[in-house]
Amino acid sequence: MVRWQPDAHGRLQQAAMELYVERGFDQVTVADIAERAGLTERTFFRYFADKREVLFAGSSALQDRLVASVAAAPADLAPLDVLALAFDDVATGFFGEGLQHARARQSVVDSHSGLQERELIKMAAIASTLADALRRRRVQEPAASLAAESAVAAFRIAFARWVSGDAGERLAPVMSESFAALRTIAGGR
Amino acid sequence: MVRWQPDAHGRLQQAAMELYVERGFDQVTVADIAERAGLTERTFFRYFADKREVLFAGSSALQDRLVASVAAAPADLAPLDVLALAFDDVATGFFGEGLQHARARQSVVDSHSGLQERELIKMAAIASTLADALRRRRVQEPAASLAAESAVAAFRIAFARWVSGDAGERLAPVMSESFAALRTIAGGR
Repeated sequence: MVRWQPDAHGRLQQAAMELYVERGFDQVTVADIAERAGLTERTFFRYFADKREVLFAGSSALQDRLVASVAAAPADLAPLDVLALAFDDVATGFFGEGLQHARARQSVVDSHSGLQERELIKMAAIASTLADALRRRRVQEPAASLAAESAVAAFRIAFARWVSGDAGERLAPVMSESFAALRTIAGGR
Repeated sequence: MVRWQPDAHGRLQQAAMELYVERGFDQVTVADIAERAGLTERTFFRYFADKREVLFAGSSALQDRLVASVAAAPADLAPLDVLALAFDDVATGFFGEGLQHARARQSVVDSHSGLQERELIKMAAIASTLADALRRRRVQEPAASLAAESAVAAFRIAFARWVSGDAGERLAPVMSESFAALRTIAGGR
């Protein structure tokens, strides 16, 4: 059977995700992943530090893209508008067509407390990096940290609704709703 | 030398904190803590699951108090006002006179990535419990989760400022400022 073969990185990711869903994260070894991908363990370790990082490889790319958006946003925008723009960009550009992958990944993360904790730590790091990016735009503390933390919360909540499957195929409108709700709350309504 | 002896729980906490500050968390054993407190290891384990939990014993009491405040808040308050009231109550009642203890504890947590992660997880649990408490007040999603996550962020940021020592002796005014700043992030000030 001939099937389309993505690059080694993509093949490893796909093999890992299949195996995690089939067997559960703890029951899968790096050797299993390499074998399923038709590659060696050595190749695996050229791309990923360990089997957990296969699930979190996207998060530094996500962070970089958000930081770039914040830096490029028009100068006169309010902090939360800057962040809403950045998350809207990743909703369409980064997660545009990935609902199926995002759902598979989330089911793996949700079934394992160590992975849930890792996700929490990655999100906290993104919030802290976004607060830095806002401070470079001369947003003062505590507004910079508060805006960054609240925006990451809005993102996480939108993402969870999206992968739950009852909010449609596209992340962008769910993300907009989540930021709109955040504005309502901050405004005291 | 006669000194005031608090109850066993308090003596163990005090001994643990002294040792963590003196030697670093990883260099302290339960046996060390028990010895310093003049108690047995068996007594230690009657109060705490492990040496890490000594640092986090307060967080479930904090959570319970916040949840009770949310349940008791006037029915017509907006979600963020309900939470601001709950955090104002703990700022005065729970952390009222504890700056010195809070600073010692924070220096221990900040010096150890495993403890920082534990803190993050405890805060996430508090946010999730507060979202439940808001839903019991008929606050809808995603507003309940967004308000809870944002309020916990406001608390964490205020707390960090307070223990840094340049915000005065009392947590309550720092907490008020943090909640006020949260209300302005959407408006661009």
